[in-house]
Order: sequence, then structure tokens, then C-alpha cells
Amino acid sequence: MLLEKINSPADLKTLELDELKTLAEEMRAYLLTVLSEHPGHFAPNFGTIELAIALHTIFDTPRDKLIWDIGHQAYPHKLLTGRREEFPTLRQSGGISGFLSRAESEYDVFGAGHSSTSIAAALGIATARDLINETYKVVAIIGDGGLTGGMAFEALNAAGDFRNDMLVILNDNNMSISATVGAFSKHFHKVTSSPQYNFLRSSAKGLMNMISADAGEIARKIEASLKPGTLFEEFGFRYFGPLDGNDLEALIPVLKGIRRLTGPILLHVVTEKGRGYAPAVEDPVGFYSVSGPFNLKTGKTTKPKPATLTYTEVFSQTLIELAKRDTRIVGVTAAMPGGTGLDKFAEVFPSRCFDIGLAEQSAVTFAGGLAAQGMRPVAAIYSTFLQRSYDQVLHDVCIQNLPVIFALDRSGLVGADGPTHHGVFDLAYLRSIPNMVVMAPKDENELQSMVKTALVYEGGPIAFRYPRGTGIGVKMSTELQPLPIGKSEIVREGEDVLVIAIGNRVYPALEAAQTLADSGISATVLNARFVKPLDTETIVPLAERIGRVITVEDGVVMGGFGSAVLEALAAADITDVQVTNLGIPDEFIEHGDAQHLYALCQCDATAIARAAKMMFR
Amino acid sequence: MLLEKINSPADLKTLELDELKTLAEEMRAYLLTVLSEHPGHFAPNFGTIELAIALHTIFDTPRDKLIWDIGHQAYPHKLLTGRREEFPTLRQSGGISGFLSRAESEYDVFGAGHSSTSIAAALGIATARDLINETYKVVAIIGDGGLTGGMAFEALNAAGDFRNDMLVILNDNNMSISATVGAFSKHFHKVTSSPQYNFLRSSAKGLMNMISADAGEIARKIEASLKPGTLFEEFGFRYFGPLDGNDLEALIPVLKGIRRLTGPILLHVVTEKGRGYAPAVEDPVGFYSVSGPFNLKTGKTTKPKPATLTYTEVFSQTLIELAKRDTRIVGVTAAMPGGTGLDKFAEVFPSRCFDIGLAEQSAVTFAGGLAAQGMRPVAAIYSTFLQRSYDQVLHDVCIQNLPVIFALDRSGLVGADGPTHHGVFDLAYLRSIPNMVVMAPKDENELQSMVKTALVYEGGPIAFRYPRGTGIGVKMSTELQPLPIGKSEIVREGEDVLVIAIGNRVYPALEAAQTLADSGISATVLNARFVKPLDTETIVPLAERIGRVITVEDGVVMGGFGSAVLEALAAADITDVQVTNLGIPDEFIEHGDAQHLYALCQCDATAIARAAKMMFR
Repeated sequence: MLLEKINSPADLKTLELDELKTLAEEMRAYLLTVLSEHPGHFAPNFGTIELAIALHTIFDTPRDKLIWDIGHQAYPHKLLTGRREEFPTLRQSGGISGFLSRAESEYDVFGAGHSSTSIAAALGIATARDLINETYKVVAIIGDGGLTGGMAFEALNAAGDFRNDMLVILNDNNMSISATVGAFSKHFHKVTSSPQYNFLRSSAKGLMNMISADAGEIARKIEASLKPGTLFEEFGFRYFGPLDGNDLEALIPVLKGIRRLTGPILLHVVTEKGRGYAPAVEDPVGFYSVSGPFNLKTGKTTKPKPATLTYTEVFSQTLIELAKRDTRIVGVTAAMPGGTGLDKFAEVFPSRCFDIGLAEQSAVTFAGGLAAQGMRPVAAIYSTFLQRSYDQVLHDVCIQNLPVIFALDRSGLVGADGPTHHGVFDLAYLRSIPNMVVMAPKDENELQSMVKTALVYEGGPIAFRYPRGTGIGVKMSTELQPLPIGKSEIVREGEDVLVIAIGNRVYPALEAAQTLADSGISATVLNARFVKPLDTETIVPLAERIGRVITVEDGVVMGGFGSAVLEALAAADITDVQVTNLGIPDEFIEHGDAQHLYALCQCDATAIARAAKMMFR
Repeated sequence: MLLEKINSPADLKTLELDELKTLAEEMRAYLLTVLSEHPGHFAPNFGTIELAIALHTIFDTPRDKLIWDIGHQAYPHKLLTGRREEFPTLRQSGGISGFLSRAESEYDVFGAGHSSTSIAAALGIATARDLINETYKVVAIIGDGGLTGGMAFEALNAAGDFRNDMLVILNDNNMSISATVGAFSKHFHKVTSSPQYNFLRSSAKGLMNMISADAGEIARKIEASLKPGTLFEEFGFRYFGPLDGNDLEALIPVLKGIRRLTGPILLHVVTEKGRGYAPAVEDPVGFYSVSGPFNLKTGKTTKPKPATLTYTEVFSQTLIELAKRDTRIVGVTAAMPGGTGLDKFAEVFPSRCFDIGLAEQSAVTFAGGLAAQGMRPVAAIYSTFLQRSYDQVLHDVCIQNLPVIFALDRSGLVGADGPTHHGVFDLAYLRSIPNMVVMAPKDENELQSMVKTALVYEGGPIAFRYPRGTGIGVKMSTELQPLPIGKSEIVREGEDVLVIAIGNRVYPALEAAQTLADSGISATVLNARFVKPLDTETIVPLAERIGRVITVEDGVVMGGFGSAVLEALAAADITDVQVTNLGIPDEFIEHGDAQHLYALCQCDATAIARAAKMMFR
């Protein structure tokens, strides 16, 4: 095995082309073995094996800086940079991250997890280099999906202006997380079936000539004939491509040539998602990431489908039902129809579902425009990605009090995806924005009711946020009633301590109450349902009567839900009440099993019971 | 006077071209009269007079929807849509807004204040129209500066894909707030001196031919010869232009022609900032907005320059001094070198100041890249605009704990610019992000110290935020000492009540303490200095001893600074302390005089004293 001998990129430098090709196949096999047993991102990584090999062979890493966008496609890079042996610990507690992390490796020059950041980061790095007269190379690798995010364009525009030496590699697999949307992409991909493209694909000679001619007449002519480059040239980049990014014979000489050039350069490579594994090539959306063991031969998961619905499924099914009766209901997604469950909605209502690209900012403002004209837009965005549209939520939706419905999936700790993806800030950042209503359901049945509540509420923007994964397994109501806005629910009554829980912390609170009962402490458990407006009418007198309050949330304590309870008590002039706020502490939480992480964060059932007992010391 | 007879756009429809031209001159004169007496945005509005006239003449507003980006250039639109008489109340308490506002007029289809949102909003509106089979026209008007914001590109990309009928007018004045940056813009502007451009400028015939040929051969040829359009065509837009946007004779027939076309259309018009007023044409940056009365003849302000430095000047001067001794210090601005004071920094250190365009997202990530390579980037961004980069602050800077310095100008209530611009959310949203240090100075001398503190601190990201306008007029230290991180300052001692104030609320707290002393109530006033880390070591024992606490901040109460104090008291298990949180209530605050607004928000000296007295009832 060649792969076993690659402990750092230095070990690549002595290999011949044939050996590099063998290495690529060994990496493919190794990825397949590990990922058929452990969950992780799949198809994109199979497309970037040759690219990672070629980059680490031609560039002098870590002195030269590779900045991978988003990180979904950086597993091959990890295998080549000293993390081969740890690779099976991927995304597990204490194991290596599924994304890029500066803390994990000096080869991970700039961390990622969210998309479209790499060009701006690379420009900052290249600028720093030039300010202190260093000479390393800076390479950003971004997907065609990542390029639909506005900040990628912002940075291209600035980079073309600043003119530092910098290479941007567009890793074009004609598909972001599902299909890349956007007019530009469609235009762009006409070219991949053009004669020029196929000429270049069959040999790297065309590109080689361009590089050696160094912007001479031939180069200009070829470049001009290749339409996709025009855009990048208008941004001040010199464009090369498209090139077969899975062909080491093409990649290596071209990268060698480009490495000598100066100024902002864009190399367009076309890679195949799932490359080398037929089931993934055939279904790259299904194989975008894999969530558990699957049969290598068939590609079918061997993990039994859970009997319980996921929150995503419940959201999706409820929305579809409600949309049958209200034609104003439309879905808005930012390149995540599958993840958010809007794919099912789009199957039923193809003309009422809009995918705006990896572009949460314009997704929210677009939804604002829809709401301004009387539609009922449901912007289904992961909690962590709504961070991208904080200003659009505030400036475009809330200031105008437009009734946009926000369905925030993957809230709370998401587990294996780690710190870039935990949806733990939403309660804090949404509740401080005027006009916003913020809900979180205790279980999947309550989620149904909240979808209904949001869709009948027309008073302004409203958000409901729910966790990743399967529900509790509760009985599902068949008749949905909207919840009264701002009203909580007492789920257990007791006299000694009041536990006010929100969202997925309600069941742990109930479990803690049971534990406490065994110790002779009787607890009231309140399911808050609404972070905003907070049910002060219920909370304040209960807190005053009971005198001991524990708040518990799956979000950050700083400024979060518990903090809202403190504000309410202070505003009501209630003193003499002991309050303990449980939730995510003021640090970034690593990846790992979500239940384990809640325990670490001291906001699981055990921690709630412990905190309550502490109040009786 | 024609202008006096224009009470709604309907009154335009009967006017002849010559009358419209006269009207334009009357509007110019009226704008000049009002703006020479009242502060407001200036130069951009002088450029869009003809455009506003032509749009309201040709389109059937408010049935047809005009969506003006940002709103800096929408005064002519206001004059034509029933707000002529109220216009002198511009930006004053109870008067009309300086931006667009749905609450103010049915002609303001989608509010704005921040840039680059109009295309996404227009796409939402056009989509809603088509879903319910209405037939009105949708027009977004966006500046070349606004186009450097990523979300404009996101929306262009989606609009070219969705293909709804929609017109985007690029109002190109070769300058955003200062000079438009970015490679694309530079490329773009080569064209305005090209023969094709000048041909079209001298007559609108070329464009008229294109429109009537309706995508025929001639049109394609002309289009192809006009390089700027290529970009928009790659995004799926049909491009027309450039056209002289100050020439009604050209604008009217072209808009008439374009109004008949379908699909996504981009019309590129070139307008002159300050048009018709020589001092503004000569100095469009200086005349971007005007801050008080000026002499019409000379263009010179008649308002005496305040003896006291502005916070912006203090920041700028301090930064320049410190940068002389540390070559790692660099400035980063998002198209606001003048507003942030980085223009002065750039004069001294031209190679160490970077303007990334109206693109706060990539500005922050760019700063992250600089910091990752050991530089000391100072990202100087208005508080309200940092909202655009919430995710970049969190994901690109704080998760990686990169030592980026955030200088947040215009924090707190900004006065006349109103709800889109008040910097009142920063304390709440920044303090909930791990690794962030957040400071606010009580006066301009403390700002100096905070700039120093931030620049010597290398432990991670650090922000200092300071108000718009002049300082208090305090004595300025000549030797700067960094402040100890997380330490507050007792500025007055007393026994009956503890007032914990942050930033510009410290002096009002002192004033309140004086008032209270007259009523026999003695107050301790604590200047918190740090919102994070909070000085719990000082605050908790003081609060416990005194038993009555008032927190006061120039930010939102929900999740804000006061909330941090409540969390600290709860965490320390302190009960028996009465706390009143003063600050910005949970609503969007309109425009008006800042001092007046603080009084309305119940967080000025009077309100602090009143709240303290209430505690003794």
C-alpha cells in the first residue's frame, strides 16, 4: 500500500505519475471503507481525491496555503496531511473534525463549515503575505455551489482589484448540495458539452499552451472562445479551464504551469461527485453525506429506518397538508431542499417552492418580498445558516414587520458536525429583534402545532426552531390547533422547584423531575413553548410562589432564553427568587454525540436534577 | 411652479417633455433649498431626479412597483409621491424618513437603509405577482456601489434563473459612498469612455433600435460590443445600456420600450452625483451627505466646526499613532473610509488600508485571513452594518479565536437616520458569541484607551463600539495605557443605589446621581467598560451590599448588557437584589434627535433618576 507511506505531503513529491494514480485509487478504497461504516460527507470527497493529490504534490504545503471552502470535500486533504490513521475517528467525540480546523492541523489554514468564505480568507492571507514580503502561494478551492454565495463574489471583486498573487480553483461538479441553482451556473454548464471543452478535456495541451504563451495571442483567443471565463475576467482574474479535475495527467502539468504565474488566477476544474463508486455517481444527492453503515455493493443503508419520524419529516408533512388549503403558502430554501424537507413540498407544489442557491441573505429578503405582496413564505433554513441572514431578518423582515415564517431546522447541538454547525445562537439573536415571535417545540407533535400556529399567525415574523434527528416517538394529533401566542404549558406540577424548559430540554426536565421526586423534591415543569413573547403571566407568579427556578435551554446561556426569564423577573420586581440558568456555556462546543455533549454542557436530565438539589444545600 | 402641482405621479402623465425638464430643474432647486438648511443625503439625490421623473411618468405607480436600493437616492421619488410639502421635515422627529419606509407611503414598496437588498426584494415581489397572476411591473433601482454587496449578486443569479418579468436599473455613478471599489467596477468604467458608449450617450437611438428589434441580430451585435453587459448576460439578464440617466429625452423612450419587454432585463444608466450643483459635482464625497446649513454659493458649511473632536476623529488619530509603532496594524473598511475615519489612516499608510467594497461579510473574513497570518487588522464598520457579518464574526473569526479588532462606529441611537441605522443590537449579539471581548467607552478619552487596549490584546477578537458625533469635551490623555481586560471603574460612590452604566450612558448616570443626591439618595455609579467579560468581581459584591441596581445601556434591553448583569447575579446566587434594566425597549425606534430619543426610550439622566426613586417607594 502506497497510502500507508504517506505521512505528510513531502512523501508525495517522490512519487511518479503512475504511483499517484495508484494512490488515488487506494484513497478512494480507504474512504469507501471508512465511510461505509461511519457517517460523513461522501460524494464531494470522492470528486476531490485527484485535486488534493495534485495540489499537495505541486505546492509546498503547509508553507503554501490551501484554503478549502466549506470543508465537505476536504477528506482527501486530511488523508494526505497526517490524519490517515485517525481518519476512522471522524466526527466522533475526541476524533477528527468533519470540517477544516486550524486547531487540528497546520495544513488547515483557515477553518470552515459554512460555505463561500474561502476567497475572502485567501485574499486576507495573500495580503498579509505581501505586506510582510513573504513568498508563499495562496490557493482557495471553492465549489460551484459555494460560488452562489454572495460573499464569494464580493471577494472575487476585491481580489481582482487588489491583484495579489492568488489562485482560485473552481471545483465544478455541476451540483452544490443538491443541484446548483442560478442562471450563471446554467449558462456555465452549457460549455462543458462544447467542442472546446471536450478538446481540453481529452488533453491538457490546450491549457498548457495557454500557460506557456503567458497571456499571448493564442491564449487570449482560446480564452475568449471559452465563455465561462468571461465572468471571471470581468472580475480581473485570468481564467484557465475547464479541465478534468479527476485526471492527474491533466492536473499536474497545469498546476505546475499556473504555479509560476502571478496575479489573480482562476482555474476551473470539473470533477465528478462520487467518482469511482457507482451508487454515489448515480445518486450524488442521496450520497452527499451518509448517515450510517451501508452495503458496499448495493449502496443501500444497513441501518434500519427509525420507526419515529424526524422533526424534518414532521415539518415537511405538516407544511404540505396546510399548503393544500392555503395557496398563499410557498417554500423558500437556500440550496437545502433535501435537508429541510422542502424537496417533498416541491414534489407536491412544484411551482410554489423556490431554491435561491447557497444564499441565505437573499433567501430571507426574497421571502420578505413575497410576504410584502400577501404570500405566506416559509423560509426553511438551518439554525446555523440563518446566522448568515441576521441582518436580512432584522432589516428586511422585522423592521417592516413582514409576516415571514422561519422554519429553523438543526437547532441546538447537532452532534457530529461540531462547532460550525451547532444551532445554539438562534434563541439569543432572534429574541433581541423586535417584532419577532420565537417558538421551540418539546416534541414532534408540538412541532406540528407550531407549524400550524406560524401559518395562521399574520401579525409579523414568526420562527419555530427544532432539533436535528428523530422525534420522541409521541402520538401525533390528527387535528391541529394553533397554539395561543406567548402561552406556556405546565407539564408537571410540584412545589419545591420550578423548572422552565424550552424545546428539546422539556423531556430531560421531566426526567429530572422524576429523579427529584425520588429524593423528595417536587418540581413544577413548565414547557415555555415561546421564547418570545415570554409567558410572563404564568412564569412570574409561579417563580414568586416556588422561589427556586431552573431554566434550561439547548442554546447559549449568554443572552438566551434563561436570560429572558431573568429580565422578566427583574421587570416584575421579583426578588427572593433563586435562579439557575442551564444551557450551552460560553464556549464553542466540539463535535460528538449530541446526548454526550448535552451532558458535558450541564443541561441534560442529570444536570438539571443536580442543579435543583444544589438549591437545597 | 410645476412642482407645486405634482401631488402624485398621476400629475406627471399629462406633462410634455419640456415640462418634465422644467420640473427636474425645479426639483433640483427645491432639494438644494431644503438640504442647504437641513442635514441629509445630498449628491446621490441630485443624480436621480430625471430617473425618478421618468420612472413615475412611464410606469403606473403604485400599481407598478419601484424598489429603490438603500434609499440614499430616493428623495426625488419622495417629492413626486405626495411628500413634497412635508419634505422640509426630513429626518426630524415626527417628520418623514431619510430612507424608504412602507409605513410612510404606499409608493415605498420595500423599505431600505442598508444596501444591496433591492434585487432580492424585487424578485420576491415579482414571484408573488406571478403566483397570483397579477400583471404589474417590478423595477429595482440599484447603485453601482450596492452591486458590490454579495446579496445583490445572489439575487441576480436567482432572478436570471427564475426568469420572472423584472427590470433592474443599474444607477451607475462610478462611485458608491466614496469611490466604488472592486475589479468589476474598474473594468466596467473603461466602457464609459468608449466610442460605443459615447455614441449612445449622444442619442438614445442605438438603444431604441435594440429594443424595437427585440433581441434581433442588430441588438445582439450591439450588445456584444458593449462589454459591461456580458456579466449580466451570464446571469441571464438581457442588458441595455449604458444610457445617460440625466437625460430625460433618452430615458423616457427607452423606458417606454423596455416596459414592453418580458423576462429579466437590466438597464444600465449613468448618472452624475450632485448634478446641477457645481460644488457637489466637484466634491461628491464631501457632498455625499450634508450635516447642516451651508452657503449655497460656496458650498461651504456655515455651521461652526465643533471644538470637541468626534469619536470617529479620536479613533482615527489614535489608530494612526499606534500604527506608527506597529507595522502589523492594518485598516479594513467596507466602502466607508470617510465615515469611519480610515481615510485619514489611508493617507498616512496607503499600503496598509483596504477597502473591500459595500461588502461587510467579506471584509470580516478578509480581516480573519489577515489575523491568521499575524497581522493586526482593525475592521472599522458601523455597528448597524456589522449586522451583515454576524456569521462571519462568529464562524470565521470567533470560532477560530482570531485576534481581529472591531471598531464599531455609530453605535447606540444614531438620531436622524432612524431604525435601519440605530446601532442598538451590537451588545446583545456580540456578547452571546464565545471568545469575543466587547467594550464601550464613557467618553472620547476612554475611547483612546480602548483603541490601545484592543491593539495590545492578542488573546482573540475584541470590539469597541462608540457613538456617532462629538465627544463629551473631556481632557485627552497624552500617554495611553491599556485598560485591564474585564475591569470596570467606579466613577462615583454612594450607598443607596448602584447604577451600572455602559458607554455613553455613564455621563447621564452621573447626572442622575447628582439629581438623586439632591433628593437625599446616594448612588454608586459604575462605568462597566466591558460588556464581556463582565466585571463580576466588582459588580456582584457591590450589588449584594447596596441591594438596588439600575443597569443602563444604549442598546436593546432584551439580551443586552443589563441582562448580562442579571445572569451574573443569578450565577453568583444573589437574591434580594432589586434590579431595573434601562435601555432600548423592544421596538424599532424611529428617527429624530438622539437625545430626545434616549429620553423617549427611558434611558436618559431623568429616567435613570426616576427609576432609582421608584425603588424607594
